[in-house]
Amino acid sequence: MHTIRIAQMGLGPLGIKIVNLINERKGVKVTRAVDCDPRLTGQDLGVVCGGKPNGIKIVSSIKELNRKDFDVVILSTVSDMLRIAPQIEDIVALGVPIISTCEELSCPWRISPRIAGRIDCAAKAANVAVLGTGVNPGFLMDLLPVALTAVSQRVDRIKVSRIQNAEFRRIPFQQKIGAGLSLEEFEKKRLAGTLRHVGLTESMYMVAARMGWKLDSTVDELSPIVAEQEIKTPDITIKPGFAAGVQQIGRGIVAGEEKITMVFRAAIGEPDPCDRVEITGIPNIDSKIEGGVNGDIATCAIVINAVRQILNCPPGLQTMTDIPPVSYFSE
Amino acid sequence: MHTIRIAQMGLGPLGIKIVNLINERKGVKVTRAVDCDPRLTGQDLGVVCGGKPNGIKIVSSIKELNRKDFDVVILSTVSDMLRIAPQIEDIVALGVPIISTCEELSCPWRISPRIAGRIDCAAKAANVAVLGTGVNPGFLMDLLPVALTAVSQRVDRIKVSRIQNAEFRRIPFQQKIGAGLSLEEFEKKRLAGTLRHVGLTESMYMVAARMGWKLDSTVDELSPIVAEQEIKTPDITIKPGFAAGVQQIGRGIVAGEEKITMVFRAAIGEPDPCDRVEITGIPNIDSKIEGGVNGDIATCAIVINAVRQILNCPPGLQTMTDIPPVSYFSE
Repeated sequence: MHTIRIAQMGLGPLGIKIVNLINERKGVKVTRAVDCDPRLTGQDLGVVCGGKPNGIKIVSSIKELNRKDFDVVILSTVSDMLRIAPQIEDIVALGVPIISTCEELSCPWRISPRIAGRIDCAAKAANVAVLGTGVNPGFLMDLLPVALTAVSQRVDRIKVSRIQNAEFRRIPFQQKIGAGLSLEEFEKKRLAGTLRHVGLTESMYMVAARMGWKLDSTVDELSPIVAEQEIKTPDITIKPGFAAGVQQIGRGIVAGEEKITMVFRAAIGEPDPCDRVEITGIPNIDSKIEGGVNGDIATCAIVINAVRQILNCPPGLQTMTDIPPVSYFSE
Repeated sequence: MHTIRIAQMGLGPLGIKIVNLINERKGVKVTRAVDCDPRLTGQDLGVVCGGKPNGIKIVSSIKELNRKDFDVVILSTVSDMLRIAPQIEDIVALGVPIISTCEELSCPWRISPRIAGRIDCAAKAANVAVLGTGVNPGFLMDLLPVALTAVSQRVDRIKVSRIQNAEFRRIPFQQKIGAGLSLEEFEKKRLAGTLRHVGLTESMYMVAARMGWKLDSTVDELSPIVAEQEIKTPDITIKPGFAAGVQQIGRGIVAGEEKITMVFRAAIGEPDPCDRVEITGIPNIDSKIEGGVNGDIATCAIVINAVRQILNCPPGLQTMTDIPPVSYFSE
C-alpha cells in the first residue's frame, strides 16, 4: 500500500500528540500542517512538536495548501458543530476526506440535523467522506456495544460503563475532572460546563439508531465523586468531603423505559477501572476490558487508524457504525 | 424499514433453528425454503420446523423459486468451499445476495483463492454481495479482535481464547467435542477429522490481513483435554484418563515469530468459560466476555442480523472485516 499523506489541522496538545504518534508509524506520514494561531503560523512543525525541524511550515489556513500534497486531513480544532462546520466545508471544497476528533461530529444527526445535513451535502458534492471519531465518543461507548450486539437474537437494554482511575493520568486531566475541588467549587465549574465530558448523548443516539430505538428523551447528569477519606498521590492530596473526580450518567428513554445507560466515572483512586458493556437480552453479554483503555494514546490511535478507511468510504458524513471497522494497520 | 424477505436454503438443525429465530423477530421474514433432501421436498416449512403449517412449501432447488419473492438467501448447507461454490453461483445468478454459515467462506482468499475469485466474479457480475459469517469464524475470534485494535497505536501480538464449558450444551455438541471417549477413540476421530472446529485458520488470515501481517505459515493443532478425576453430569460420566473435550490451537507465524495465537477449548466441566482477546502492544488490551457467548443462539443471530448489512454492501465476496459492523436491529 502507498503511504497515506496527512495534513494535520489543529496543533493543540492533541494535534501535537497525533503528529508525534504518526511519526512512529509506517504507512502514514504528516506532510502538511495548519493552525490559525499566529504564534504557530510560519513555524516548523517538527520544532513545534518538540523535535527537530522537518521542513514542514505551519500555515494559517487550509486554503494556502496545494491539494496534491496530502490525501486526508486530520482535524482536531474544536468540539462543537457550529464552529467545526465552516472548517469542514473549506476542506471538502478541496476534495479531501476528513477524520476529526470533534466530539459533537461523532453522531450529530439527531442533535444538530441542519448542520449535519449541510456537512453531508458538501461532502457528497465533493465526493469525499467525513468522520468524527475518537476513543469516546466514537468507540468504547458506542461502536463497541453496537458491534457486540451482532450475536444478539434480542436486545432489551444496554449499559456501558467507562470507569477510569485518574491517579496516573496527566495533571490537566485530573484538573478537568475536578479532582481536589471543594463541592462548592465543583458545583460552580459544573454550572460553567467545564467538567463535562462531551459525547455521552452522541453515543446514545449512535447506539439507538442501530438498535432501531427511537429515544423519546435523553438525560445527561453530572455529579462529584466525593472522597470518603484522604487520598494522597505524588500530584495531589484530596481531603475527605472534597471531590475526587466526576461521575456522568446518560440515560436513553424509550416509551418510559431506560433502554440505554451510560456511566462515565473518572476519579483519583477509583477502584476497578474498566470499560464494560452489559447487554441484557438473548443471550446476555457481559464484556469487560480490564484496567480500561487509556484515553491519552487511544484517542490519537483511533484517529490515525481511521485514515485508511476514510479513503474507501462512500462520500458524505459518516459515523463509526456506518463504515467498515477501523483497525490498526502496519504497512 | 421494509421487512426483509428471506429464502432459507438448507434445513438441517442449524437451518431449522435459524427459521424459528427469524419467526420470533420483527423486520425479517422467511418467505421461501430450499433443501435438496427428497424427504423434505414438498413438505410444509412450518411443520418441518416443528410448528404449525405456514403454507411455505420446501422446494429442491433455488431455481424453482421466483426471484421476486425474496430479498436475500441464508445458505446453511455445507462447510467447505468446493461444495458451496456451485450453490452460490446458482443463487447470485438470480441477482440475490447471500449470507452463509459456511465456515470456509468466512475468509477464503488465502486458502482457496481460485474458488474465492470465482465467487467474487460471479457476485460482482450479478451486482450482489456474498458473506460467510457466524459466531466463530466470523465474529469472536476474528472481527472482534480486529475491531478492538482500532484504539491501538501499535500491535505486536494477538491472542484470542474461546473457552467453553460443554456441560450444559446439547448432547450432539458434547459428542462433537469427543467428551467421554477413550484417548484411543479420540485419536481415531481426530485422524478422521470429525472433532475439528473449522475456521481457526480462516480467522487467523482475517486478522492478519487487517494488521498487514503476511503469515509465512499457520499451525492448527488438536488434542484431547483429559479428565483428571471423574466428571459426572446428568448426560454423561467421564472416567479419569478419558477425554472431557477438545483443545485446538492455531498459530500464525510471521518471520519466525508467533504473532497470532488462537485457543479454542470446549470440554465438560471446563472452568472459567469466556471469550477473551489479549492484544500486546500500545496500549495492551485485555478484553473478556464473562461466561463466553453461547454459540447455539449466537451463530443463528449473527446470520439473521447480517441480512440487513448485506443489502447495502458493495457487490462481491465480502468478509466480516470488509463491511460496516453487523448489529442487532429491531424494526
